[in-house]
Amino acid sequence: MNSIDFVKNTLTFWDKITPIDRRLIMDNIALLHYKKGTHIYHTELDCMGILIVKSGELRVYLLSEDGRDITLYRLTPGEVCVLSASCVLKNITFDVHIDAEQDSELLLLNANFFQELYNKNIYVENFASKLTIRRFSEVMWAMQQILFMSFDKRLALFLLNESKKNNSDIIYLSHEQIAKYVSSAREVVSRMLKYFSNEGIVKLSRGQVILLDKAKLEKIL
Amino acid sequence: MNSIDFVKNTLTFWDKITPIDRRLIMDNIALLHYKKGTHIYHTELDCMGILIVKSGELRVYLLSEDGRDITLYRLTPGEVCVLSASCVLKNITFDVHIDAEQDSELLLLNANFFQELYNKNIYVENFASKLTIRRFSEVMWAMQQILFMSFDKRLALFLLNESKKNNSDIIYLSHEQIAKYVSSAREVVSRMLKYFSNEGIVKLSRGQVILLDKAKLEKIL
Repeated sequence: MNSIDFVKNTLTFWDKITPIDRRLIMDNIALLHYKKGTHIYHTELDCMGILIVKSGELRVYLLSEDGRDITLYRLTPGEVCVLSASCVLKNITFDVHIDAEQDSELLLLNANFFQELYNKNIYVENFASKLTIRRFSEVMWAMQQILFMSFDKRLALFLLNESKKNNSDIIYLSHEQIAKYVSSAREVVSRMLKYFSNEGIVKLSRGQVILLDKAKLEKIL
Repeated sequence: MNSIDFVKNTLTFWDKITPIDRRLIMDNIALLHYKKGTHIYHTELDCMGILIVKSGELRVYLLSEDGRDITLYRLTPGEVCVLSASCVLKNITFDVHIDAEQDSELLLLNANFFQELYNKNIYVENFASKLTIRRFSEVMWAMQQILFMSFDKRLALFLLNESKKNNSDIIYLSHEQIAKYVSSAREVVSRMLKYFSNEGIVKLSRGQVILLDKAKLEKIL
């Protein structure tokens, strides 16, 4: 799909704005390329605008003063990142970081123009609010995993979800990466994976985790 | 202030709805009284509607299967609780509990009528969305306290040491001075002290911090 169609399909307020604004949107959209691992955004540094994931994957996370990292959610193609425009959104007072988890193509609708649209068109404001509230729910889910679930359950759930998401029993992630996604330490992940592998639930090899016994993994939940 | 004025002042979409709807709102509002400690609401049990705190205090929290309790935020007079109408809000998929922390008078706009308003009037939808996003920010702050314990520990330790040093439960320091001693920003200190005072740990007054519950303060360490 070309960028124009992609934008039309994603910005659900498209029919609620004037033809002039539609053209202005296209004029104010930039196609950005980020290599895997790039730090794209931090609230305190800049106000970027609305990001539409065209390809690849983004990770939105919290970072503590002492460098601890909590994954809030990930964004895949077709999803829109609103927190990269938190300067525009009213009532958002927390800081997030955004990284490219994969080589990613992003469409950026710049903050200034989005601010204009947001201020003059309640449907645009509503679009942003609804997306933000959806993220709120995702964040609450992630928080409940971290605060309420024992770690073996968290890791089991993560492995099953990844396998389902990619429709594969091989998960191509390092222990380091998994630790980030489940908001834990690499050592903790490695120890639990070692335990899973001793139990014959998974097989570990360089940069991948192979699920051998999903039934057993589901029993852990 | 009587209930009618209270409602008008709180529901900021008042000017954006028809006179008939305004009357219908008043017809669909009930004044409820809850004794301190009452469990008012749980997502899974019912869909209550919009709650306006007229007097007293509400606590909105998460509860884990094994009974662990995480306070998300508290609501004081004049504040509106939207999560008690999460059945109406789109994209809210998590469960919360709400208790009365004090004897409380609440105005309840019932869910069915609010749903009608919400569906037909984008300003009403927008009102609910904005409130939800504000709560999102409060929740994120609370979560960061829980997940990134670093700063509240530093401040708790400082307060306990000062108290011990001066052999007094009153610490005669401005937030500015405390910020210097713990090498942080005044805003950060003020926010954390506000949090401590909401938790009943300290009492704040001009140029002093009074320690009310040192046991609780020590638990933070």
